[in-house]
Amino acid sequence: MSNIFKTCGVIGGMGPSATADLFQKIIKITAADSDQEHVPLIIHNNPQIPDRTAAILRGGQSPVDQLVFSAKLLENAGADFLAMPCNTAHYFIEDIQKSVNIPILNMIALTSEELLNLNVKKPTVLATSGTVKTKLYENALKKKGLSCNLPSEEQQEMVDRLIYAVKAGKKDYDITPFKDMLNKLSEGGDNLFILGCTELPVAFDWFDIQNKFIDPTMVLAKNIALNSGAKLV
Amino acid sequence: MSNIFKTCGVIGGMGPSATADLFQKIIKITAADSDQEHVPLIIHNNPQIPDRTAAILRGGQSPVDQLVFSAKLLENAGADFLAMPCNTAHYFIEDIQKSVNIPILNMIALTSEELLNLNVKKPTVLATSGTVKTKLYENALKKKGLSCNLPSEEQQEMVDRLIYAVKAGKKDYDITPFKDMLNKLSEGGDNLFILGCTELPVAFDWFDIQNKFIDPTMVLAKNIALNSGAKLV
Repeated sequence: MSNIFKTCGVIGGMGPSATADLFQKIIKITAADSDQEHVPLIIHNNPQIPDRTAAILRGGQSPVDQLVFSAKLLENAGADFLAMPCNTAHYFIEDIQKSVNIPILNMIALTSEELLNLNVKKPTVLATSGTVKTKLYENALKKKGLSCNLPSEEQQEMVDRLIYAVKAGKKDYDITPFKDMLNKLSEGGDNLFILGCTELPVAFDWFDIQNKFIDPTMVLAKNIALNSGAKLV
Repeated sequence: MSNIFKTCGVIGGMGPSATADLFQKIIKITAADSDQEHVPLIIHNNPQIPDRTAAILRGGQSPVDQLVFSAKLLENAGADFLAMPCNTAHYFIEDIQKSVNIPILNMIALTSEELLNLNVKKPTVLATSGTVKTKLYENALKKKGLSCNLPSEEQQEMVDRLIYAVKAGKKDYDITPFKDMLNKLSEGGDNLFILGCTELPVAFDWFDIQNKFIDPTMVLAKNIALNSGAKLV
């Protein structure tokens, strides 16, 4: 394959909308005047990966076999490095990394690095209860010397409900209670939200939510383009 | 892979926005309440496929090697059938089909079938000059007993310019002359446009163009979902 760019393999389908969102963001962030200057990708939209949150919190089927299946499929197909547009799946990143010989970009570590660069001290984490309970962001932020603000149990339930509504494509979801909750929640931190589930940037876009945020999907998109060798806009 | 759905391999990157658009449309058309009910896909976003129109009209590098490379990559990765969200690439479909043992959905034949079902007699073809000169739609429509309305040479140049503006992500493109041209052009046919280049549904969306149209990308998305075994919304 005559190709100056490295190919990124995307372990996707968690959910499909979040994977399509990453794809759009990679295109958007790449400076390209023709097809040929864009980032080569192999995307495995594998919706059969079992629910990550259910596995972590409720003893549901482990997603590791399917995550490893996708990682190997992408490596065998010619990917030079991997990425996963699913925060909760990062709980299993070491198991996946062990199964392949190409590196996996860590979206959560990259986002924490970016927050450090932005001089944010105490962001608020919005994520699935799976991601929150496993302290994926809390620990990654701590490694950079940052703390974080977390939703109460009741607030967390509202976050989870919104995430599953996006997965189901419910654009008519009643967003008002969620918006009110965000404003209350932000009082405990720096008024910057980590959209720590890949469905949340989709939700912020669909429902025109105006609070300040960092979008780990965008951070990942930027790092995929850079790693591939593409120019950024 | 424990999977009741068939996997569709997508030969993509022609251009990347059109491939992302197909991905979004497959998600949108699938009736799914959870990740697991969505269509499994392997998408090869291969932007290094040489320009199809340049190859057909101006003796540019043939895209066949790269198209076959993608088709085989997807077959080897486990795709059960293939699809190509690029109309012009369908000029090479027989060469690609010969190289793999899995079927390729033909977007142009499927769109012509749909027009027959809709009782449209003389649609207007909007496509790259490559697609128009090779009569891809003209011949496919003729097979169904339909005729078509085509742009003049000057009108065709405006279509080509818009397509390359979308490939370059130019959302600030001055669309007014194109809109005026469409209204004049529609007088020669049934006032229904075939958006016969995968960048055109993207353009109609970006620039809020109101003329009636059939979107072959959506026709392809529907057939991918059906072929995969998913439920439609």
